[in-house]
Formats: sequence, structure tokens, C-alpha cells
Amino acid sequence: MYEIGVVYRKIQRAEGLVADKLGGFGSATVHEAMGRVGLLKPYLRPIYAGPPVAGTAVTVLLQPGDNWMLHVAAELIRPGDVVVAAVTAESTDGFFGELLATSFKARGARALVIDGGCRDVKALGAMGFPVWTRAISARGTVKATLGSVNIPVVCAGALVHPGDVIVADDDGVVCVPRATAARTVEAASKREVNEAHKRAQLAAGVLGLDMYKMREPLAAAGLRYID
Amino acid sequence: MYEIGVVYRKIQRAEGLVADKLGGFGSATVHEAMGRVGLLKPYLRPIYAGPPVAGTAVTVLLQPGDNWMLHVAAELIRPGDVVVAAVTAESTDGFFGELLATSFKARGARALVIDGGCRDVKALGAMGFPVWTRAISARGTVKATLGSVNIPVVCAGALVHPGDVIVADDDGVVCVPRATAARTVEAASKREVNEAHKRAQLAAGVLGLDMYKMREPLAAAGLRYID
Amino acid sequence: MYEIGVVYRKIQRAEGLVADKLGGFGSATVHEAMGRVGLLKPYLRPIYAGPPVAGTAVTVLLQPGDNWMLHVAAELIRPGDVVVAAVTAESTDGFFGELLATSFKARGARALVIDGGCRDVKALGAMGFPVWTRAISARGTVKATLGSVNIPVVCAGALVHPGDVIVADDDGVVCVPRATAARTVEAASKREVNEAHKRAQLAAGVLGLDMYKMREPLAAAGLRYID
Amino acid sequence: MYEIGVVYRKIQRAEGLVADKLGGFGSATVHEAMGRVGLLKPYLRPIYAGPPVAGTAVTVLLQPGDNWMLHVAAELIRPGDVVVAAVTAESTDGFFGELLATSFKARGARALVIDGGCRDVKALGAMGFPVWTRAISARGTVKATLGSVNIPVVCAGALVHPGDVIVADDDGVVCVPRATAARTVEAASKREVNEAHKRAQLAAGVLGLDMYKMREPLAAAGLRYID
Amino acid sequence: MYEIGVVYRKIQRAEGLVADKLGGFGSATVHEAMGRVGLLKPYLRPIYAGPPVAGTAVTVLLQPGDNWMLHVAAELIRPGDVVVAAVTAESTDGFFGELLATSFKARGARALVIDGGCRDVKALGAMGFPVWTRAISARGTVKATLGSVNIPVVCAGALVHPGDVIVADDDGVVCVPRATAARTVEAASKREVNEAHKRAQLAAGVLGLDMYKMREPLAAAGLRYID
Amino acid sequence: MYEIGVVYRKIQRAEGLVADKLGGFGSATVHEAMGRVGLLKPYLRPIYAGPPVAGTAVTVLLQPGDNWMLHVAAELIRPGDVVVAAVTAESTDGFFGELLATSFKARGARALVIDGGCRDVKALGAMGFPVWTRAISARGTVKATLGSVNIPVVCAGALVHPGDVIVADDDGVVCVPRATAARTVEAASKREVNEAHKRAQLAAGVLGLDMYKMREPLAAAGLRYID
Repeated sequence: MYEIGVVYRKIQRAEGLVADKLGGFGSATVHEAMGRVGLLKPYLRPIYAGPPVAGTAVTVLLQPGDNWMLHVAAELIRPGDVVVAAVTAESTDGFFGELLATSFKARGARALVIDGGCRDVKALGAMGFPVWTRAISARGTVKATLGSVNIPVVCAGALVHPGDVIVADDDGVVCVPRATAARTVEAASKREVNEAHKRAQLAAGVLGLDMYKMREPLAAAGLRYID
Repeated sequence: MYEIGVVYRKIQRAEGLVADKLGGFGSATVHEAMGRVGLLKPYLRPIYAGPPVAGTAVTVLLQPGDNWMLHVAAELIRPGDVVVAAVTAESTDGFFGELLATSFKARGARALVIDGGCRDVKALGAMGFPVWTRAISARGTVKATLGSVNIPVVCAGALVHPGDVIVADDDGVVCVPRATAARTVEAASKREVNEAHKRAQLAAGVLGLDMYKMREPLAAAGLRYID
Repeated sequence: MYEIGVVYRKIQRAEGLVADKLGGFGSATVHEAMGRVGLLKPYLRPIYAGPPVAGTAVTVLLQPGDNWMLHVAAELIRPGDVVVAAVTAESTDGFFGELLATSFKARGARALVIDGGCRDVKALGAMGFPVWTRAISARGTVKATLGSVNIPVVCAGALVHPGDVIVADDDGVVCVPRATAARTVEAASKREVNEAHKRAQLAAGVLGLDMYKMREPLAAAGLRYID
Repeated sequence: MYEIGVVYRKIQRAEGLVADKLGGFGSATVHEAMGRVGLLKPYLRPIYAGPPVAGTAVTVLLQPGDNWMLHVAAELIRPGDVVVAAVTAESTDGFFGELLATSFKARGARALVIDGGCRDVKALGAMGFPVWTRAISARGTVKATLGSVNIPVVCAGALVHPGDVIVADDDGVVCVPRATAARTVEAASKREVNEAHKRAQLAAGVLGLDMYKMREPLAAAGLRYID
Repeated sequence: MYEIGVVYRKIQRAEGLVADKLGGFGSATVHEAMGRVGLLKPYLRPIYAGPPVAGTAVTVLLQPGDNWMLHVAAELIRPGDVVVAAVTAESTDGFFGELLATSFKARGARALVIDGGCRDVKALGAMGFPVWTRAISARGTVKATLGSVNIPVVCAGALVHPGDVIVADDDGVVCVPRATAARTVEAASKREVNEAHKRAQLAAGVLGLDMYKMREPLAAAGLRYID
Repeated sequence: MYEIGVVYRKIQRAEGLVADKLGGFGSATVHEAMGRVGLLKPYLRPIYAGPPVAGTAVTVLLQPGDNWMLHVAAELIRPGDVVVAAVTAESTDGFFGELLATSFKARGARALVIDGGCRDVKALGAMGFPVWTRAISARGTVKATLGSVNIPVVCAGALVHPGDVIVADDDGVVCVPRATAARTVEAASKREVNEAHKRAQLAAGVLGLDMYKMREPLAAAGLRYID
């Protein structure tokens, strides 16, 4: 399925402005706006609580226990990118730590999303480089086996193409294909306006049952109230 | 096992005062006072660190990936309640978020305990609505299939009846049956007095071996010291 | 494999100064300095974020659901020790809480590493007693079955001898055998000097590809760049 | 939640004939006939492939690592019973083996369903005593702490009352409350007749799309075919 | 990431002969021949031991707890196909059983690979319809929410396009892209010839150390023998 | 903790006759005879049902995804050995398959116990080479990084020294230290005689309650019977 040992230098990135707008909505709203698809599995968690992040994907395919390709990827990072790293087998090793984060940050990366482990979490928090990861582990990696950079990867169960928009926050990580990113901004925007209105009603004590007009369909589905 | 599609409007709640007192002891002390039973499984974790919570259970049975019944339950919440939601199959979806929390809070709910996932965790922290959950996931749910409200449910391995007292804190969640809640307050109270005394001794350097008079039973059990 | 029902009163501890120095490097650096071995499995996590801890191991073998031997161990703790507790079967019970922490602290223990569960996490945070644990659970334990103290134990997949140095921080827990502790300080020290230099270069935008001279080996391994 | 240290000698069992009939349908059909409830979690698996089993529940509450109450339960087994054992905390220990199976079989038990571990699996297969279990483990248990017999228990996430009907086969385990057992036979019976007819059609190449008249609702839901 | 609610009627299948040849090699050899990529995660297991299976993929995207799209897919199956079903969220429900298997078999399907659960396993074994699945569960599904058919899907961590070759056996499941299927047959063929020769040598007592000429590289890597 | 890159050529093996005797008792009896210690974690399972195996341990420490050291170990196998392989990080890769099994068998190995994955399970079954493993996976490994042979290893949570006795069967795997192997034969022997007698009584309908004289201690512990 994967092409191994290749690095695509040129990728088409979604527009930075679109990525930023998507970041403003957060992963839950973006996921709904896309038709309830695009989420990476919820085992990916941020290593520290911080603001939402959005950017364009630089993708990396790693071999388990080997972070060589993260160094190769560093050269291809442009300001506004989010590095998305998949691994060819399940691994919780600490592929990424303070040194790589220093390099990624210097290149303008906004975050790392990795279907593996990460270490130096205190230092990463102090320097403000956010990471979404499946594990925290002090166990380091070697630099011995080729993977690839900027090929389509499956990360935490979701397909990510280079240049797609990644939105990551406390609720998780969502990937928005480049082609539908602008359209998703619109859909998310509508949804958000809608939500603000609903929130006000609910805070005032209006029931969702009435606001969403659920009483009839509930009765039609056979719901019985017993006093 | 479960009655599906029913909502019990009237439930008998444990006394609010009793629930508040139990909350003051915390889940560990209450669990011990009950004879070491009543805990929900430890995979339920709070979405943010906060003060202990206690209240009377409004129970909900959800279908996986469907939060319709949480809306039905909202109408039945009274101030001082804790909503306890079970799911008919394992699911980590985000059944609950900011909008429902706004509604629950407006109705007087103190917390949600859910054997599923939750989203909008940053917003929930900001508004101060505590949730104990098995997962955090941006993945939303539909409103299509009936469950039930205020039937006895099995949540995270424990049986919870509507009106039971729920105590939840950083150590976990415990359910105290309504019938034994008052008696549990007494037992927990005795235990706590006892603990304060022990703490002072231990802090002064007295060994548990001596304080609990364990040396003899340890020798009787055959413990051998080797110099 | 284990001797049950024995307590070794006299153990040979690594030098306190060496332990302190190792603690200064952190688990990731120490693990690398040892040749990438010695880590406990990454499911052990600190119950609260705090500074790194290092000390000499007092080992305990517990039976599942039984914390009797932790009381026996308390008597053998000396200032600067870290208690390392293994369990003969997988258990997430709360073997350890505020009372034992009070006692351990009074005896001079710096931390507990336990391949089981812990409770009273809020109180432990308030009193500043750090614990690395596989679970948080309000479920308490009994005092009925013998284990052992200060025998070699397998904790979270790693062999720990009494007197070994334990280094624990946000990235995990590593065990350094007493015999190699001094040598590991040296190796870690060299590594750290080295890292400071690298960090400065990477922060200035130098690529790891160039700094580590990776371009040639990558080409030799067959990496192809595609424009 | 649980009453500890009690044994109910007299329980009301569902009719044996009804249990036998339910066994004939299998767990999947019975679960559907009940309205898609009543299943124990799918991590319970049979220790060997064998015919379906059905019987009336004798319930046991065990403490982790302790099988004392299985001996207490043995005395209360009547021919046609299935013993259902819950544990107050997660445990994979081997609570049950050849000796207890010999005793249970001599008393007329048809099977054991246990939310824990089992051992002597080869011998159990040879003697034909079926067990549904969460783990296989040679690790034995002690006889030191009280649980209860014939109280309602939560086993693998499902509430089981003494006297309920248990149906267990290769697909899993389902609990049918005594009160609805007869009604469930009827519902399952209708379902089965229905299925035989459907199977014949499908085997002849008729599509479910046509047999279930799904084309219209699929179109209504917005399904688009692309050539 | 996924297009929801679409069915592609026309797909380009890999040649049947190529699929058959790949099936003859088995998943391990094919995976190696592809450069050690293409495997689905090892949690997918066959529901019964049987011969290896190979065929061309018809892909299905399911919603959790909903098997509607499997019925839609049935119409598009051609003899020699293997249905590959992904689910938009983790679910162990029994999406597939005897009735659907009867239909799939009548259409010429050779197997199902599903990142969810399956039921009626005894009947499926009896009728000889092989399934690779993550769980066995009697819990059935509804037919209420649209997914898609014959779009690219991520199943058990691997990207599968409609028409790709699927090879499944006791060791797992591998997906060979249509475009590289013929080339993979050649590579696998060479590998197999090679292995037969090696097997004979090893059976005769020749050591891999000598056969693979490992002694020198081991020494170069620093391996020390101690007598 | 581990010495990396060393191979101990000479190890002291437990007596073959003692190993054979221990194998005759099975893992459950041996584990009990040792005082309920020595078991490897129950996630290790046999890849096919077969007779019990016992032998003397040749130990291997592997790096994740790398099986080089299994080839090094092959040379050191003597008839009657069981190879026990630990991995420095969790890995489910298929470290072992038909070729290595052919070699191991030719050298006289009786089985492999590996805290990793295995492949070619059908072929291994056909050739009768038993393996206890944590996973089955077609994913192969490389030969690039040194581990060690015949050092003490922690395998599935248990410490195994080269030359110890390994007993493995359907119930799991137990390690008996060389020094206590003979003594364990005696203890197991007594236990077995004892069990045969008990089995006869239980089969005749005698209750464990009476046979083990449990009624009094149960009453003393407070057990209440309710009619």
C-alpha cells in the first residue's frame, strides 16, 4: 500500500487562511461540518492542555522504533505546517522530543500529530510545541530504516494527504481534505452561528426537546412516559 | 434485561442532605464505608480536575452513537441531580458537549457520569460542568434510536438505580443505594474520625506495623526477616 | 521465581549523590546513556505533574488487592529511597493512599512506583508525595496475604533490585542497576553536553540532516527525492 | 450496591423447558427477540467449541483472586443450572478448574459463565464442562474473603438475577429475565420461522435490497449511485 | 475524508488470475514481496481455521452498529470478490451473520474482512464462508444510516481501494494495490523459490548464521561471545 | 538493566529428567507447587492446541521488529531446550515463522515462548513446533540491531534465567528456577496425588464445603444463609 523510500518535495497545500479559519471552529464543529467524517481515532491525545492548532499537513511514514524520516521531513516544513506521522506498525516509542521540536519550531511547524509516542513532554510544554500522540515514553528510537515523506498516510485510522488541513485541540484531531477545505469553512460557520443561538436558549432553560421539536418523533418512535 | 423506550417521570430520590454529606467524604471513604462495594470501574475519569461532586441519580440508557435520550432526560433533572448514562454497547463517541451541558446546568444538574465519550472539554471546564467519562472524542452522535430514562442501568460495571446517591471525585465514582445512604454517612463519618487520628500518628513517624498491631499476625502468617 | 514471605532488612544502596545526579538528567537521557535499556513500561504514569524524582529502590512484592507488605516496607525506608512495588497478578486496585503516603513521607521516602493502582490523588498532590502508577482507583485493599520486601522484583516489565537507582519523571521511569550507576552518570553527562550544543544549532535553523550528516547514509539506503 | 456475605438458599428459577427452548434459538436470535438487550460483553468467550448451552442462573459474587464462594454455590446447584460468577474487581485469575468442574457437574450444572479466568482447559474440554470466560490463566486463587451467592450480580456488564435464563454459545452469552422468558420464546420462534424463509430466498440469489424493500428508503436517505 | 452516501457501481478489478496466484503465496510472503507494507492490523482474526483466501476488493464503509451498506454492497459483488468493510468508529457489534453470508455466497463472494464484529460463527463455519473480524458478538445492528460502497476505505489501519487484491489467511490480511499486483506475484514467486531452498538447508541442521552469512556482520556490530 | 550485545555460550541447565517430570504435571499444578509464583502473564497463548511441553530455557533478548538474535540463539540450542524470547519494547511483529522453526527443530528445540508475535501458524501446526505468543502477525522483522542470548530476561512479566525449566500448556507458561526444580517436582507430586483423591470424592457428589471443612471458617467469617 505504501511507497517506501520516497520523498515528495513539492506538495500542494490548502490555503493558510482556510486552515486558520478551520482552526477557529475546533475539531468537533469541523467534523460535523464535514458530514461526521475525518476524525483520527480518539486515542490520540495532546501532551499538554493548550490552544487549538490548525495547519497544512506534511506527512511522514515511520518505521517502528525509527525516527529517521522526521529529520528528512524537517527540511520540507514551511511555516504553518503540521507534521502528521504514521508508523508502519504499532509502537509507543518516543519518536520525538525536545531536539526535533526545536528544529521543527525553527522551521515554522505548528504541531506534530504522531501515531506513536513522544518524550521530553515537560520541555515541549515549556517551549510551547504541541504534540498529539498515542503514548508518552522515554524510550528513544534509532535512525536505520527508510520510510517516506509526503505520501498519503493512514494515521490513527484516518487517511491524510500532504497539504490537507489538520485541526487539533482538546477534543481530538480532524483532517480536512484540501479540496473541501473552503467548503467546510462555510458549513462550519453556519453551524457555529446556529449553535450560539441554541446555547442562549438552552441556558435560559428551554429544553432541547422543544427547541429541536423532538417530542413528536419520540412519540412516533414509541417512547412511553410512565408517571 | 433492559426495558427499552420507557421514561419514568417520578423517581424517589435520596435526601439531598445525605448526598451532600456523602460527597464530603469522597469516593474512597464512601466505598470503604459501604463494605468495599459500589465502585464504577476505574476507566471512568474526570475530564478536568475539580472539587468532588455528589448528587442523586437520574439514569439514562443510550444506544451507541446516539444521544437522543440525554435530551429526554434533561426535562427530568432537578437541582442536585447527577445524570448517569449507560450505553447498550461499548462506544467512545462524544455523546455530550457544550450545548447539552448548558441545558443540564440550567436544569440544576451537578455532573454527568457517562460510560461513553464526551467532547467540548475545554468549554465544559470553562463553564464548570464536571463529567466523568471513558473517552474524549470529537465524534458526535445522532438522534435516531430509543433508549430509556430512569430505569436501573449498569454503568461501568455497577448497577445504578434512579435516585441513588452518586459520589464522584479524582479517585473515581461510587454509587450508594438510596436505602443505605443514611447508614453509609454514619459509617463514613466514623471512618473519617478514625483516619484523622491515624494520620497524625503516622506523620509523627509511628509505623503502621505498630499502630495497626500487625507484627504478630505477620509472624503468625510466617513472615521471615533476614538480616 | 519469587521468594514469598521474606523481608531483607539490609540492602546495599547506590550512593545518594549518584542517584541525585541521575535524577538531574531525567529518564530519557538516563535510558539512552544506559544503552537504551532499563525503562519500565510506559503505562506507568505520574498521578500529578511535578519535578523529576530519583532515589534508591526499596522493593516490595504485593499480592493483588492486598497492601500488607507496603506497611512492612515502611519500616525499612531510609531518607532518599523510592519504593518500587510489583504485584503478583495484574490489579488496578488502590493499594496506596494518603495514610501510607504520610507514613512513607515521614520515613523519608521520595516517591512510590507501583505496578497497580493508587487513590487519594488529590491529597497526595497537596502533600507533595509523587506516585507513578498504572491506574487510579478508589477501590481499597485488604491486609491478608504475604508478599516480600527487598527481593528483586519485576515491576512494569523491568527487573528492579533493592538499592538500584530509580529515576522517574513526566516521560516515565527508569531503573539503573547499582553497579552501573556511577558509569551511567558519566555517560549521561556527556550526552547532555552534546545535546545543548545540538539544540542551539537546531534552534538556529540548521537541519538535523546536515548536523548529523545524514544525507549520505540516506542516499546510500536508497532514499529518492521527487520534485 | 452488593450485599456481601449472604447466601440465598431459595431462588425462583425460570421453567427448565423454557430455558431449553431458548437454548435452541441461540444467543443472537434470543438477543434480537428481547429487543436487542441482555447480552454480556463480547470479551466473554467459550474455552472450547461446543454445542449451545442454556439453563437457569445460580449467581455468585467473587472477590478478586478468591474462589471461596464457588464452593458455597456448589451446594445450591440443581440440575439444569448455569453458574454465573461476577467479580468485585477485574481479575484474570484462574478461579475455576477441573476439581470444581467435577463437583459442579456432579450437582447437575450445565456450564459456568465467569467474568474472570479459568484453568485446566484441556481437562474441562475432555470432561465436557463448558465455560465462558474472559481469560485463561494457570494462576490459582485463595479461599479467604466472603462474597455472596444468589444475589443479583453484574457480570460482564449485564445484570443477572438468580433464576434468570442464560443462553450461551459461540456468539456469546445472553441473559433472559425469568419474567419475560416465556414471551421471549414466542418472539424468538417467530423470528426463526421468518429467517428460514429469508435464507432460502437469499440462497437463491434474491438480494436483501429487494427482499427487505430497501431501495426506496435508501433513495429517500439520499444514497447516490455513480456509474 | 470519506464521501458518505455514494455507491460506485463500476470498479476496476485486479485480474482474477493474479489474485489467485497471490493467494497461493499467503499473507506473510506477499507482505514481504511488497516491501513489508500493506498489512491490516493483526487484531483481525479468522473466525475459523480454513484455507487461505484471495480475491478482489469490494469496499464498504459502515456506520457503527449499522449494516445497511452491506446489503447495498451485495448487489455489486461478482464471483471472486472479497468484501472489505470499514466502520467510521470502533464497534464490535455483529454486523454480519448467516443471512448476509448466504446472500454474499450466492453472489460469488469468497470472504468478508470487517473491522467490526460478526455473529453466527458456527453457521458460517458450517457453510464455509470465511470471515476475518475484530470481534465475535451476538449483538445485531440496525439499518438506518448511510455509508458508502466502493470508495477507498481505511480498514484496520490499511488503505484499501476497490479492486485491490486481498489475501487473507491464518497469519492475517494483506492488501495488494491493483497496479502492483502482477509485479508482486513475481517478487513473491522469487521469494518462495528461495525459501524452499533455505528450508531444506535448515532442516539439515545448517545454521542461519552460516546460511545467511551473519557471523561477520554480527561481529562488526559488536556482538561478544562469552564462554 | 540488560547487557546488550552479549552471548553466553555456556549455561547450566536444569536436569532434563526433572524438566520432563515437571511437564507431566502441567503449568497450573507446578505454579501451585512453587507457592503460586512463576507464571508468565496470561496474554501468552499457544498458537495451536497441543500436548504440554517442558524443557530448559535458552533465553533471547530481541529488539522490537528485529529477529537477528533468534538466529544467534539457534546455534546454542541443545535437544530438550525451550527458547524464551523477550523484547525490549512491546511489539506484535511476526519474529518467528516456518524457517526458524525448521532450524530450531533440527537443533532439538521443543518450543518457543515469545513475548512478541509469530507467523506461518498453519505451517508450524503442520510441522508440530509449538509456540506460545502474544500475537499472530504476518509482519516480518529485520536483522539489524543487537540484543543478547542467554542473559536473564523478563518475558511476559516473569524473570527467566537461562537453564531454568519452562512448562507450557493450554493454561499458560510457568518458569521454575533451576535451583528449585527438583524440590518443585516433589511438591507437585504430592499435590497431584492429593487431587486425584479429591476428584473422586467430588465426582461422587461430596461437596467441597465438606471435603475441605469450609463450613466452620465460613461461619466464622460471618457468612449468613437466608431461606
